[in-house]
Amino acid sequence: MDSKVFQKFSYGLYVVSSKKGDKINAQIANTVFQLTSEPAVLGLGLNKNNLTHEYLTESGVAVVSILGQQTDLGLIGRFGFKSGRDVNKFDGGSYKLGPLGAPIITEPAVVGWVELKVTQTQPLSTHTLFICEATAGEILTQDALLTYADYHRMKSGGAPAPAKPAAQTAGQASGGGVYVCGVCGYRYDPAVGDPDRQIPPGTPFEQLPEDWSCPTCGVGKDQFQKD
Amino acid sequence: MDSKVFQKFSYGLYVVSSKKGDKINAQIANTVFQLTSEPAVLGLGLNKNNLTHEYLTESGVAVVSILGQQTDLGLIGRFGFKSGRDVNKFDGGSYKLGPLGAPIITEPAVVGWVELKVTQTQPLSTHTLFICEATAGEILTQDALLTYADYHRMKSGGAPAPAKPAAQTAGQASGGGVYVCGVCGYRYDPAVGDPDRQIPPGTPFEQLPEDWSCPTCGVGKDQFQKD
Repeated sequence: MDSKVFQKFSYGLYVVSSKKGDKINAQIANTVFQLTSEPAVLGLGLNKNNLTHEYLTESGVAVVSILGQQTDLGLIGRFGFKSGRDVNKFDGGSYKLGPLGAPIITEPAVVGWVELKVTQTQPLSTHTLFICEATAGEILTQDALLTYADYHRMKSGGAPAPAKPAAQTAGQASGGGVYVCGVCGYRYDPAVGDPDRQIPPGTPFEQLPEDWSCPTCGVGKDQFQKD
Repeated sequence: MDSKVFQKFSYGLYVVSSKKGDKINAQIANTVFQLTSEPAVLGLGLNKNNLTHEYLTESGVAVVSILGQQTDLGLIGRFGFKSGRDVNKFDGGSYKLGPLGAPIITEPAVVGWVELKVTQTQPLSTHTLFICEATAGEILTQDALLTYADYHRMKSGGAPAPAKPAAQTAGQASGGGVYVCGVCGYRYDPAVGDPDRQIPPGTPFEQLPEDWSCPTCGVGKDQFQKD
């Protein structure tokens, strides 16, 4: 079996949040899908090791915030590559509590949200599949969605097509070549630079400031290797 | 709750096939998603009324054929808007049997396939969620995927971006206005015509041949109403 075939499935990208008592947490997930319309029932797959999994198992309440094309790697890095056991992922971001107390991400990149109440739990090997009833939901903007495929393009130094066309020179390396983050796989391409942090195209990796960090997962330059 | 928010989730589009004894059938589905990698476990949601659901419940074997951007509405109409109780959906199309006997669609639009064996069944209101182990799979082409959003654009007279850019004038109606199929919702737009069947742009609905039929679901002109 060619297991690369699984990369051919199409997914969106979501911030899934939950709560436990007065604590809140959130993570990036792509396994979110509607199963029935009447009633509106959704499936949600989370890794058993994640803190959001622990909170959701305890409270049975989640919010799915749907990411659009304006999403930047900073947001994905904050919610996706750090653990709520180490940091408060909501520091510096905006959110509000949904009707059942799990946080809705209210940053401009979010195109809509759905609140979920768990009705059944299906344990699998590494993940749990939560089957949930939708209890509330709202569309926030008409922006196009971010897909999982867009995210992989962004990680490689590109950008979702309509959002940042200038960055699509990714891969045409100049300067000292491409460097890859050993933690998350983000590729620093000197032809692209890091425009979100005022690093212009044409800046070799070696000339990045010493305190520059991976836009996706936040680790320092010492975690990067030449491609 | 704004139930339009569910349209914001991102899905692919797939042909899901199964078998029962020496009979085979297939249908269009969008609820297909990977749940765990080791072992490779997928979820698959099917409507309980569908013949493929009956076959899968009996044999426990399915194949998911993944549709790419070359997919046309004819293929979706054949597998998606007709019942295997009325027609043989494989007439005029190409397929081969997978290792466990369910058919793999081998038409050029298919970018890859995965064979599944059901391990757990989760009945819901209108649908069943089948939890399946992947037993075989193959990538066939590197074409980009068709998404559910692309399909909705195609139904409205447009086309997935890279495949048929000329058709993107959809919505700029000319001639006698747009007509909508009462069965599947396909919109005939005279500004686009029906290029797959040699109907040039600018042809009003009223001037279509009497034997013209809906490109999506195959019903006749009498099932259309002016938008």
